[in-house]
Amino acid sequence: MTTDAVDARTATLARFFAVIPAGGVGTRLWPLSRAAAPKFLHDLTGSGSTLIRATYDRLEPLADGRVLVVTGEAHRAAVCAQLPELGERDLVLESEPKDSGAAIGLAAAILHERDPETIMGSFAADQVISPAGVFQDAVREAIHTAAAGKIVTIGIKPTHPSTGFGYIRVGELLNVDYAPNAHAVVEFVEKPNEDVARQYVAGGDYVWNAGMFVAPVSLMLKHLEINQPELHAGLLEIARAWDTPDRAAVTARVWPTLPKIAIDYAVAEPAAAAGDVAVVPGEFGWDDVGDFAAIGRLNSAREEDDVTVLGDTPRVFAEDASGVVVADTKRVIALIGIKDVVIVDTPDALLVTTTEHAQRVKSAVDALKASGDTDVL
Amino acid sequence: MTTDAVDARTATLARFFAVIPAGGVGTRLWPLSRAAAPKFLHDLTGSGSTLIRATYDRLEPLADGRVLVVTGEAHRAAVCAQLPELGERDLVLESEPKDSGAAIGLAAAILHERDPETIMGSFAADQVISPAGVFQDAVREAIHTAAAGKIVTIGIKPTHPSTGFGYIRVGELLNVDYAPNAHAVVEFVEKPNEDVARQYVAGGDYVWNAGMFVAPVSLMLKHLEINQPELHAGLLEIARAWDTPDRAAVTARVWPTLPKIAIDYAVAEPAAAAGDVAVVPGEFGWDDVGDFAAIGRLNSAREEDDVTVLGDTPRVFAEDASGVVVADTKRVIALIGIKDVVIVDTPDALLVTTTEHAQRVKSAVDALKASGDTDVL
Repeated sequence: MTTDAVDARTATLARFFAVIPAGGVGTRLWPLSRAAAPKFLHDLTGSGSTLIRATYDRLEPLADGRVLVVTGEAHRAAVCAQLPELGERDLVLESEPKDSGAAIGLAAAILHERDPETIMGSFAADQVISPAGVFQDAVREAIHTAAAGKIVTIGIKPTHPSTGFGYIRVGELLNVDYAPNAHAVVEFVEKPNEDVARQYVAGGDYVWNAGMFVAPVSLMLKHLEINQPELHAGLLEIARAWDTPDRAAVTARVWPTLPKIAIDYAVAEPAAAAGDVAVVPGEFGWDDVGDFAAIGRLNSAREEDDVTVLGDTPRVFAEDASGVVVADTKRVIALIGIKDVVIVDTPDALLVTTTEHAQRVKSAVDALKASGDTDVL
Repeated sequence: MTTDAVDARTATLARFFAVIPAGGVGTRLWPLSRAAAPKFLHDLTGSGSTLIRATYDRLEPLADGRVLVVTGEAHRAAVCAQLPELGERDLVLESEPKDSGAAIGLAAAILHERDPETIMGSFAADQVISPAGVFQDAVREAIHTAAAGKIVTIGIKPTHPSTGFGYIRVGELLNVDYAPNAHAVVEFVEKPNEDVARQYVAGGDYVWNAGMFVAPVSLMLKHLEINQPELHAGLLEIARAWDTPDRAAVTARVWPTLPKIAIDYAVAEPAAAAGDVAVVPGEFGWDDVGDFAAIGRLNSAREEDDVTVLGDTPRVFAEDASGVVVADTKRVIALIGIKDVVIVDTPDALLVTTTEHAQRVKSAVDALKASGDTDVL
């Protein structure tokens, strides 16, 4: 490589700005995860880091402090406690949740106001990824591909025919400099049934959609303008006022009027149809920690008998038992003769289910909501 | 019946004095039942009454206030709160537990000091019996049989080949006035294995030993003197001082020296061998609430889905679940897709097991003891 080429490559990577949307209650992780203490504020892997802290640390070698966190106003203190590096300019607080289209779109618009050459990368605050080095290599490829004029998603090589994720159909190799694995995206497809999922995995040209996007902010906004002109106009109005004394007034007036739409529908899918989306398949381990069964998988190291135990001060006695215990209290927990159990022990709510039924926790939350027991949600 | 006969019958029943030994932690009901709050202080049937209160109420029509409760000093306040009827003379407090031989023997000795004609009836504070009328009829028969010079136990017609109870082999009918069902006792037998238990139940001449004794205090003391002279002498020394200013001093000196032995070995079995024991088979429902599976059986009326719920303020959400929940907290408890589960939720300890393994709770308690987690025992 020539010195110029090295400089160009470095300059491209220096355009990267990490966006961390930190939203989503994680209902299937109730009662651990809840409105007041959502999933991203928990250490669900026994690593000693909350998910949002681990996300920040994983991006920092690429972002070098260029990080924007988008979260709810209610989580400001908790997020700042987790990420003391964040300055006032690095935090976008939503007065009310407006789905990922508005959250990521506002980040794009603010970053575009500050520097229209920015390449943003959006990575949810509540995913588990390892090893970080392999992830970072994929993001670097995605940045170079984005610099070539694409919205780039990082797809996950499926390890099993999951029916819980959307898939991405991978097209031809793009031959982008410094991005040997970048491919075109043929289409995004919704969560499949099990037969279809099996075909996807067997065929080899589908990857999981992990919701990661790397793109020039200008290209994100272009597709947003085409597909969601109202949302685009509102976000631009807020973004122009953002770094001025008018921020509060404009945001208060405009934000509540914005349509709620996922970024997938607002940008990714129509952009894919227009041929503007690429994918870099990621070879790293990935988990969205969708339920407590996932916590069992991710924490197999800390076991008492065959029970995976998560918690600061667990006092778990297990005899002839297996499963997952998440201890958010200092209580003694005794398990006797019970298999594949999931126990989540918090000060005001207790969940007992099985790894097999872990996905059904959401229905319990819905039932509690319906019964008026909202104090524990 | 002549008037004289009626008078004699009434006079016999008036000799009855109920003794309620309230001891035993109920380890297999941990963490609900524990040293500081033993089994008899809980409402385990959802009746609204603690077991000791229900025991008192069941005996009161026979005892008419002639009740002596033997319990640990630590439980004085709780017992008096449950039984405000008790006067100072109606309470025997043990400074340290000395097994049932000393507890029931001391009651016999004190009652003998006060009135040597007394017929005592000893009934544990932590059993569940119904209907009370049938039980009371059996006790009346036992009192008449005792008046004829017997130590009388009330045996329970077995409903299944339990291996958790001792059995009594029933002998010939005794033809006691006003006690048409009184039989001789051939022998007491220890908890059998399942094959033997099946034979006992099939044969029809065995009943469960529920540990209930009705006997003239003089006869109890006579057999105690023969079989446990040291214990007998110590108890008599305490009993003579009991209603005098010397009670505290004598008790403090003598009680700690007494041997620990069950009343079965100290009195009942040798007396049976001597031909002095009778049995009145009871046709009432009886349960010693030995474990949480029993609680499920006894409370089937209060169900949420197929879950039996016990507690003052239960907030239990169950979906596709069955089993027993004992809620000693105000927490929301959600059960999803789990069968025959036993959950006992207390402020400092949580037990999760199955009805099948409910008997193994004792081993958890032993393990906690060994590990030093004695704060929750």
